[in-house]
Amino acid sequence: MDRTACETMVETWVTAFGTALNRPDIDRVLDLFEPEGFWRDLSALTWNVYTAEGHDAIRAMLSACLAEIAPTAWKIDQVLGSSDGIHQALLSFKTRAACCSAVLRLRGGRCWTLLTAVTELIGFEETTRQRRTNGAPLRYEPGRPDWRTERDRQKAELGVTQQPYCVIVGAGQAGLGLGARLKQLGVPTLIIDKRERPSDTWRERYATLSLHSPVWYDHMPYLPFPETWPRFASKDRVADWLDAYAMIMELDIWTGADCVGSQYDEALGAWRLSIIRGGRPIELRPAQLVLATGFWDAPYVPDIPGRDRFGGRQLHVAEARELGQCGGLRSIVIGAGTSAHDIAAQLWEAGANVTMIQRSPTIVTRIDTLLPAVEIYDTDAAAPKPPTELADLLAASIPNRLMPQFQAPFIAAIKAKDAAFYEGLRKAGFLYDFGEDGGGFFTRGMQDPSGFYIDMGASELIIDGRIAVRSGVSVDTIRERSVVLSDGAELPADFIVYATGYRRLAQAGAILSSEIIDKLGPIGGIGSGVRSDHGPWAGETRNVWKPTRQPGLWFHNGNFGLMRFFSRVLALQIKARQTGLPTPVYGLA
Amino acid sequence: MDRTACETMVETWVTAFGTALNRPDIDRVLDLFEPEGFWRDLSALTWNVYTAEGHDAIRAMLSACLAEIAPTAWKIDQVLGSSDGIHQALLSFKTRAACCSAVLRLRGGRCWTLLTAVTELIGFEETTRQRRTNGAPLRYEPGRPDWRTERDRQKAELGVTQQPYCVIVGAGQAGLGLGARLKQLGVPTLIIDKRERPSDTWRERYATLSLHSPVWYDHMPYLPFPETWPRFASKDRVADWLDAYAMIMELDIWTGADCVGSQYDEALGAWRLSIIRGGRPIELRPAQLVLATGFWDAPYVPDIPGRDRFGGRQLHVAEARELGQCGGLRSIVIGAGTSAHDIAAQLWEAGANVTMIQRSPTIVTRIDTLLPAVEIYDTDAAAPKPPTELADLLAASIPNRLMPQFQAPFIAAIKAKDAAFYEGLRKAGFLYDFGEDGGGFFTRGMQDPSGFYIDMGASELIIDGRIAVRSGVSVDTIRERSVVLSDGAELPADFIVYATGYRRLAQAGAILSSEIIDKLGPIGGIGSGVRSDHGPWAGETRNVWKPTRQPGLWFHNGNFGLMRFFSRVLALQIKARQTGLPTPVYGLA
Repeated sequence: MDRTACETMVETWVTAFGTALNRPDIDRVLDLFEPEGFWRDLSALTWNVYTAEGHDAIRAMLSACLAEIAPTAWKIDQVLGSSDGIHQALLSFKTRAACCSAVLRLRGGRCWTLLTAVTELIGFEETTRQRRTNGAPLRYEPGRPDWRTERDRQKAELGVTQQPYCVIVGAGQAGLGLGARLKQLGVPTLIIDKRERPSDTWRERYATLSLHSPVWYDHMPYLPFPETWPRFASKDRVADWLDAYAMIMELDIWTGADCVGSQYDEALGAWRLSIIRGGRPIELRPAQLVLATGFWDAPYVPDIPGRDRFGGRQLHVAEARELGQCGGLRSIVIGAGTSAHDIAAQLWEAGANVTMIQRSPTIVTRIDTLLPAVEIYDTDAAAPKPPTELADLLAASIPNRLMPQFQAPFIAAIKAKDAAFYEGLRKAGFLYDFGEDGGGFFTRGMQDPSGFYIDMGASELIIDGRIAVRSGVSVDTIRERSVVLSDGAELPADFIVYATGYRRLAQAGAILSSEIIDKLGPIGGIGSGVRSDHGPWAGETRNVWKPTRQPGLWFHNGNFGLMRFFSRVLALQIKARQTGLPTPVYGLA
Repeated sequence: MDRTACETMVETWVTAFGTALNRPDIDRVLDLFEPEGFWRDLSALTWNVYTAEGHDAIRAMLSACLAEIAPTAWKIDQVLGSSDGIHQALLSFKTRAACCSAVLRLRGGRCWTLLTAVTELIGFEETTRQRRTNGAPLRYEPGRPDWRTERDRQKAELGVTQQPYCVIVGAGQAGLGLGARLKQLGVPTLIIDKRERPSDTWRERYATLSLHSPVWYDHMPYLPFPETWPRFASKDRVADWLDAYAMIMELDIWTGADCVGSQYDEALGAWRLSIIRGGRPIELRPAQLVLATGFWDAPYVPDIPGRDRFGGRQLHVAEARELGQCGGLRSIVIGAGTSAHDIAAQLWEAGANVTMIQRSPTIVTRIDTLLPAVEIYDTDAAAPKPPTELADLLAASIPNRLMPQFQAPFIAAIKAKDAAFYEGLRKAGFLYDFGEDGGGFFTRGMQDPSGFYIDMGASELIIDGRIAVRSGVSVDTIRERSVVLSDGAELPADFIVYATGYRRLAQAGAILSSEIIDKLGPIGGIGSGVRSDHGPWAGETRNVWKPTRQPGLWFHNGNFGLMRFFSRVLALQIKARQTGLPTPVYGLA
């Protein structure tokens, strides 16, 4: 179909859609959707992160939301083109409270998928780009404080004489990115972190740790990584960046401040957070509390019999900052995910003899193969690319339910292109798969981001036999200088590294009462029913970036790209509450 | 003329031009230029920053350079359009050593102005954007150091066991921006600064100091200011930025290191720099020395009779960090340039009675009027704008000789648009003009960047009489509580601020021998023959960004925009020398 026909089709649909919503005529709206069509909403209609799947769900959502939200003024911003009979377009529209964006997929004249997302709150727009403030006065006024004086005053007062509206616990990339958004929106926000230098969470990890996603996917809000940066930044570079980012974004951070407990005061409509800062107890009373402490935050070491008797060196990969001399060390890496691969390769580089113990299959994807799958984000490419914000919208426009289906051609292509690579892994005894549902790396990420490896070179070492693998087994017993596997084999061992993952939400558990935790239900995962992501189906990541059953409690988490995008959705939900806008939540889990 | 006709004309010219150069047929090349045509070259042909004005100069330049440089492969990258019978195009070409860019202005089929500029050295391209390094290994190797270990090693060795190829004195925005370029080019460079925290040069200034140029003009190399920043950043924000920039760009900086003397060792082909670092003398032996210490680096206080007897408070504006209580203070600001305006307004805000003493006219331009003149840099604008690098090229494509002519319509428009504003200044007794040559702010900037003010609000205070002005006079005598003007008037005074400018090149004078300084001739200015910029005409800023008569000695200076652009030109000249490329300099002053 040529461009014009595609445009006409989109125009016809958008006009009919806008008319039906304005009337409102929900039956007519449903006529415009496929029976199994999807409407994913990011706080534009639902003040939630919610996907309505099929006519009944869409009808229920619209019945509840339309009157209050009144989406109107639908406009086509850009027709994005057609392929396989599917026409895509970028739309914009307004609600009573917000300017919103939408991504439409039409098929046979009806909507297959629609994404609606809040972009900015009317009257509370971010002062970025064209809307930058002047900074320096264009008009002098007696008593006007200069920037530094004002900044120092704010810093000194926040949390002391002025209660923050929002407290974010955790000053890693999650907390800082969200903090930057809230700063722009003028929400008094205090970020607290128990470490003296939060970026040390990165520095303390093993030496070869780097981002396994390309720099142009990982940009944080407002300040892209510099064009000089390598494609995959080392952990220490990321740490330096986070320190600089916090300063440049003027974030209010208390380091060395540990949140040791919390209580939600219904009468006050605010939290009472017990903070220990510099040895002294302080109570903070924010209306909103965001936990950005990471979901997998406490090293997990399995309680393998004999562990205490081991005569060599053993540590969890989280403690592997300094490996020291490894020449000739017989090293056992327990685990086969990302950190297991990284540390195994690092041990090999350091001269150790390395054996990886792999219990179950790993989703392995070669980095060269993965990059084209996210090339929409590649702002380095010579060909014109959408700005990162649009790329984010397009990525979000795929409903989670459809992710395996959208991934299928990509997975098929991987299997064909990298057949020799996978054959090499197979021959080396390494177990790989493409996830229980066959959706590979990307769907696994939504379900439970573990059990995968983006290959940055360790797979080659496995294929070549330089890293040995024992797969389909676990370690049953540890002896003084060996490990005994579940198949009865005994491997000599001088050094054991547990790349056995992390316990979830340890910090959240220390902060929140068990009553609240029980009320919340599962946190993270989408209820896909696969390993570590039990159902029922939720359609969206549970309790993350969206209202929870506990008023004033939020979780922020994800990879750099997801956090960049959803930090805005979350920040706008918080801003709306701060300004007293009505925020009726539809579809609270 | 329509687009196609313009394209055809450009194509015809470029084809003829390329053919004539290849032959080479200099007469034919000259046929393609207007008799008074300009060829500005930024180290593409001349390994210099040099403008050939007219046929004879172009002939001389080509006769000297063509054989060695061999510019070839001329291509039209973009036809930029036509106005007033002038067609502009962006070209690219190659020399033996480099990929280069060019900006062409055609008029009546012949070239009026041509800019040629080196873009990158073949084989030594920057690893930016599409050419980013991987950072993390895609292939592991035993003994490979991690990023932090390697970085720490470099830092520890540079200047100690490894001599830097280049030393930059001064870690302000000039030194850091150039340092970032050289880092990308792999030139071992040490930046030294006598301060413990170089950015304090910004922090120590008066509280209301801010950039008077918009944020999108001021971007430093590789890392644009964030989209959240105000249009005109406060000095303290700039200071924080410089600290972050140095870290993010991984620059090697010795702070608290004072260069107290130098000697060029001809036999060694290198400098012997005497450095005092932490109280200990160290000798550094770089091949290249760049002074980036600022041209106006020592506060100048005129020796007005009676100054010692003044019973009130007096200070140079450079020392005006803390003004303290000013309510009712009778304050005299001596001077009428930017810092005089800023400090006068700040005093007024602090409750002082302020009188500005203006000896000679000031070039005043309203910021709202100035912004459209640099709107080509406005990356915030909704309309598509060229990337900053192209905007820089276009700005550089105007030969300095033509600047007043290019500025004329803009100046005329200012006079018309802001007539009421200037009338207000006139009525308030304030002397303004548009520079000796009528070229206004921009031409003044090339001649001697002083005696101007981009109005950020102080002019309104003058117009309204809230800041008093005594103009056409100077202070003849200072008494215990008053100043006596050259017209005999006596003004009571509790506080005198000397906004009387700076002595030039004080640090350079302390570092370089007087023999070298004498050899160099004037530094800065273009020899326009106007006030503070004595002739003869040089065509280019003297001794800046280009080879000097002292081998291995360079000056780097300018506003943020000029430094961003010329830091590349300068860095590539240094890189070429480091790699041993032939760099025959044409037109050394």
